[in-house]
Amino acid sequence: MANWENNVRKVVPYVAGEQPKNKKVIKLNTNECPYPPAPGVERLAREMDMDAMRLYPDTDIRPLADELAKYYRLRPEQVFVGVGSDDVLSMCFLTFFYGKDPILFPDVTYSFYDVWAELYRIPYRVCPLDENWHIRAEDYKCKNGGIVIANPNAPTGLCEPLEKIEEIVKANPDVVVIVDEAYVDFGGESALPLINRYENLLVVQTFSKSRAMAGMRLGYCMGNEKLIGYLKDVKESVNSYTVNTPAILFGVEAVKDDAYFKATTAKIIATRERVKKELKDLGFTFPDSKTNFIFASHKTVPAEEIFRMLREKEIYVRHWNKPRIDNCLRITVGTDEEMDTLIAVLKDYFAQKK
Amino acid sequence: MANWENNVRKVVPYVAGEQPKNKKVIKLNTNECPYPPAPGVERLAREMDMDAMRLYPDTDIRPLADELAKYYRLRPEQVFVGVGSDDVLSMCFLTFFYGKDPILFPDVTYSFYDVWAELYRIPYRVCPLDENWHIRAEDYKCKNGGIVIANPNAPTGLCEPLEKIEEIVKANPDVVVIVDEAYVDFGGESALPLINRYENLLVVQTFSKSRAMAGMRLGYCMGNEKLIGYLKDVKESVNSYTVNTPAILFGVEAVKDDAYFKATTAKIIATRERVKKELKDLGFTFPDSKTNFIFASHKTVPAEEIFRMLREKEIYVRHWNKPRIDNCLRITVGTDEEMDTLIAVLKDYFAQKK
Repeated sequence: MANWENNVRKVVPYVAGEQPKNKKVIKLNTNECPYPPAPGVERLAREMDMDAMRLYPDTDIRPLADELAKYYRLRPEQVFVGVGSDDVLSMCFLTFFYGKDPILFPDVTYSFYDVWAELYRIPYRVCPLDENWHIRAEDYKCKNGGIVIANPNAPTGLCEPLEKIEEIVKANPDVVVIVDEAYVDFGGESALPLINRYENLLVVQTFSKSRAMAGMRLGYCMGNEKLIGYLKDVKESVNSYTVNTPAILFGVEAVKDDAYFKATTAKIIATRERVKKELKDLGFTFPDSKTNFIFASHKTVPAEEIFRMLREKEIYVRHWNKPRIDNCLRITVGTDEEMDTLIAVLKDYFAQKK
Repeated sequence: MANWENNVRKVVPYVAGEQPKNKKVIKLNTNECPYPPAPGVERLAREMDMDAMRLYPDTDIRPLADELAKYYRLRPEQVFVGVGSDDVLSMCFLTFFYGKDPILFPDVTYSFYDVWAELYRIPYRVCPLDENWHIRAEDYKCKNGGIVIANPNAPTGLCEPLEKIEEIVKANPDVVVIVDEAYVDFGGESALPLINRYENLLVVQTFSKSRAMAGMRLGYCMGNEKLIGYLKDVKESVNSYTVNTPAILFGVEAVKDDAYFKATTAKIIATRERVKKELKDLGFTFPDSKTNFIFASHKTVPAEEIFRMLREKEIYVRHWNKPRIDNCLRITVGTDEEMDTLIAVLKDYFAQKK
């Protein structure tokens, strides 16, 4: 090892779900939306003033912050926009988890939380979910340096009631509590109504799932102006211009088309509920998902075996070799046709097993 | 102050040049390119498959890394792409400046360096430029935790000879040396040929200036595979997908059109050389810029006075109230027409002064 390597920050990175080059693959492994972005986005791309690309974008990402504020009935100063919710969450960790006490999050949750904690050398402690994959509010009533909770949680898909979230926020006035609502638009209950009552609460959302714009990299968080102000100072200390001009333009258009957004999420929810029944009939069990994925275990066949079989059939789902969840598959809700294929393949497979 | 604020990282952010909403303004304050991006970029925007926006982009930004590698005759593993060179530099600071000794950079240089150092709590020491705004190689031959040098330097516009850069890199095998070449395409000498000889050298470049894509947020750095590997690990620990799909597509197209790139930079260089003569005739002095800006002081009139006068005439240039440079203006090289207007306004102004 060369001497200069002694001065290098060494980390074990997050591993994202595979992005296959083969377009025939039925891709149910990264919780993307199976439907395209709002039609206005395509129109905008066709009309985009390319000369404007030579200029830096708005450093405050103001057009999009304004549109989101209007949509959620907030002041623009209560909204922070970033390069996907990962960028927003990473900035939040860097900004708000700067104390000495360990931050808290569930043992089974978004697997980026411990990666950010390791990267920024933030002490942390995981709180085990109960045997039904639920958060126990009592676990979060101890001395800590901050809290981050995904609600609905990933990869379980479960949504905690707002009362439980409020109980945790209320019990922790001395630290910042982040509620990561990447999946809230598929039937979850948002903590957004609480931000005007609790100044230590931040709610994070994304365009990657319900707004079908994972490829545009847009996420945002909402909270009181003081929190957002601190976050902006850190963001302006990392990169003056994070979100590019097309993303700002397209994001505004996506928020404006509320009818399309509601129709798309309703369609995904309907498919999910139908698929739940079919998976149950095939012998799967799962927590009652309020997201665009189902976290399923089979009563008799190990998850890894099903994962491999599906992969051979060019159907990608997500599987982790991790304690507690190694017998579960996270299956994204795709189009009805994609889910029909999945169910048919599973039916065949289990029929042959008998 | 609420208790939760005790756990917050507080920083003084970088302040970017103003982005006026008024489109009539002649904008010579942020070193943007006065010409549009390569024509192929517009064609791509018109043809872009919007359905693809629902999918996450390539996490390795591989299509663009491949294209850059081909262009610079490197292996793709020697290239790292980010959201503008600010994102790349910020990741480099976080990754490579993790030692105990102070990092070194000039006193007059890109004013983001000390902001990143403060943000990541990296000890640093500035080395004063000599009286002609040049770097002194000897200043960088002491115990340190890393070095970052902008070459050509901003806001001076001066380019140091490659021998001086090599002397510094060679003297510091135990730390990473970053050469920030945001402006190198306007006549500077790149340190790129050195990366295969010095494994501690990283060269950073951007699409924001010479490739007219500030609005797309694209930057990159090049170095040996080990350096790039460490950087990717940190990037994958911050955000799996940083560069969005349009930026990857447009970036590839911009790199492919080398004829347009060469014509654009040649045009800007020609305008710059012509404007240098005219500014000299008006009583300005300046270091011999190899960039797309001129760092000018007037022999008799204070910079701030000229700055205010130009602002009233809707011509924006950059001025800092900082020691050593408070009598200088950084004037971006715009189109010939924009520079004609600037010169005419200055002529009028100095004529009235007499």
